[in-house]
Amino acid sequence: MTESKINLKSKLESIKDYWSPKVIAELNDYQFKLAKIKDEFVWHEHNDTDEAFIVIEGSIEIELESRTVELSKGEMFVVPKGAKHKPIAKGEAHIMLIEPRDVKNTGDIENELTAKNDIWI
Amino acid sequence: MTESKINLKSKLESIKDYWSPKVIAELNDYQFKLAKIKDEFVWHEHNDTDEAFIVIEGSIEIELESRTVELSKGEMFVVPKGAKHKPIAKGEAHIMLIEPRDVKNTGDIENELTAKNDIWI
Repeated sequence: MTESKINLKSKLESIKDYWSPKVIAELNDYQFKLAKIKDEFVWHEHNDTDEAFIVIEGSIEIELESRTVELSKGEMFVVPKGAKHKPIAKGEAHIMLIEPRDVKNTGDIENELTAKNDIWI
Repeated sequence: MTESKINLKSKLESIKDYWSPKVIAELNDYQFKLAKIKDEFVWHEHNDTDEAFIVIEGSIEIELESRTVELSKGEMFVVPKGAKHKPIAKGEAHIMLIEPRDVKNTGDIENELTAKNDIWI
């Protein structure tokens, strides 16, 4: 599935739901995921891994316990392992996530925002 | 060093040499690198890892033994572990590479194009 080239904007067109990351590529045991996001996510943390956010379209905020990181299109940030964070997008934003396979989007939390893993587009 | 947000275009402005990837972020034991490339690289392979290419600006070709993958801005491709490949850019192109720390840019080859690792910008 990763043997073809991947056009990020074309892949994003097929995503309808917010906060529901879809896998577009694998790199060893890591995955590249695309997501459309809007409004506030839930505070959570990933105890075993860092998590990279790259903004493809729009702008987002990543609230950390001590500060807020504002990211616009073409900017990225790596949330350190174990850092509580809450992503926010005031308008619709498109992001790429890079993290190990099987990382749950809501980390240590399980709620209605918890998305199914390994859904490829 | 990865605790700040990273603006890809700003980071690219500080890169002068072609084919000399610079580290901008780490994700666990993986690195995000930016590079400016132009003309032909050398055929090589990475025996222990896949390697992700994302085109930030311009367009590139990745020659594989059986075919050539053409990538434009906003497109990505993962070169599978052990696959011989040769990146080419007919004009200047800007790319992001994602791969484990300590991967040598020329893989199994050592020549004048071999770049020093772990140079952060």
